[in-house]
Amino acid sequence: MKAGVLYSGGKDSSLASIMLGTYYEVELNTFVFDPLRHIPTLEAAAEALGYPLKKRVFREGMLNEMADLVIDKGYPNDAINAVHQAAVESLAAEYDVIGDGTRFDDRVPMLSRETVQSLMSRTGCSYVRPLLGYGRREVDRLADQLLVVQYGETGTIRNGDYEAEIRDAIRARGLDPASLFPPHHEQSLVVGRKPKESW
Amino acid sequence: MKAGVLYSGGKDSSLASIMLGTYYEVELNTFVFDPLRHIPTLEAAAEALGYPLKKRVFREGMLNEMADLVIDKGYPNDAINAVHQAAVESLAAEYDVIGDGTRFDDRVPMLSRETVQSLMSRTGCSYVRPLLGYGRREVDRLADQLLVVQYGETGTIRNGDYEAEIRDAIRARGLDPASLFPPHHEQSLVVGRKPKESW
Repeated sequence: MKAGVLYSGGKDSSLASIMLGTYYEVELNTFVFDPLRHIPTLEAAAEALGYPLKKRVFREGMLNEMADLVIDKGYPNDAINAVHQAAVESLAAEYDVIGDGTRFDDRVPMLSRETVQSLMSRTGCSYVRPLLGYGRREVDRLADQLLVVQYGETGTIRNGDYEAEIRDAIRARGLDPASLFPPHHEQSLVVGRKPKESW
Repeated sequence: MKAGVLYSGGKDSSLASIMLGTYYEVELNTFVFDPLRHIPTLEAAAEALGYPLKKRVFREGMLNEMADLVIDKGYPNDAINAVHQAAVESLAAEYDVIGDGTRFDDRVPMLSRETVQSLMSRTGCSYVRPLLGYGRREVDRLADQLLVVQYGETGTIRNGDYEAEIRDAIRARGLDPASLFPPHHEQSLVVGRKPKESW
């Protein structure tokens, strides 16, 4: 069975992909706003995992709407959730099984129980989150056991996180995204996969 | 890293154990009220999975308290949750990582987010639920892919479910458990593991 996994190149979606890869034929999917956006570090992460990567582009206009939403709300949570949901819905049109790296203690993005149930009954698709039952400590321990990971703040690490393009769009309007996003948001980027013998 | 998994011999806890077994040294743990209760079908299920099984006994008096609770409430949910939580807490005293087969759409037993957070911060233990991000359809599909499963109503299938002993205790008081438990509760019992080549 094929599974389309939302992939950022970060620790969580990489670990989720590996977990799914034991049972599914995994295809990684990264969504960008700008069709010209090219993320070599993300492609290298997918290559390290050994799964094919597909770049998907959100519909035109979405980036501006999301920048509006962040500015309107004064914080990014609703926009990040809306973007994530749009990505999930888009994959649901293409795969019978879709997955992502949502963890037990994630707050954003996190689809509500009602949204998940609606998605599955509307589309007939299964949405699976292999890390939903794992807290941060075990996710970090397993990621360290299976993967080589680099860490850094948004902007210093080039993964496929939605946040970077929304921040750029806000900056392009002459506003400072730092006033709208939480001060610290550690990002991660997978740069290698450890062989099973070393676990 | 060792993981102590709550094990009933059913489909969900078997699948969860296999998923954890990729990354942890799994030990299966089954709780009973009666120290003399012997469940050969459960031992055979553990043997089929290939993980060691430990039988654990709840403290004396617990079965009667749980029978009281079911009779008092008129339905079994609170008792089943209390029993499950007692089992999880007991394992948390012995393992750094504990797991169970809770699925996304399970209602009972299901520890609340607050209970899980409290458990982890009080005990320093990680409680992991590999099926929490999977709905019934994918759990059933994966279980069928990996395992040979028998199905039947409570009473016709001998797994290590808490329900059977509580029903017996209620019956021993001259009451009919059928009036207190939902009319249909399909149980499952694993009777074999399929080789990876056949998935």
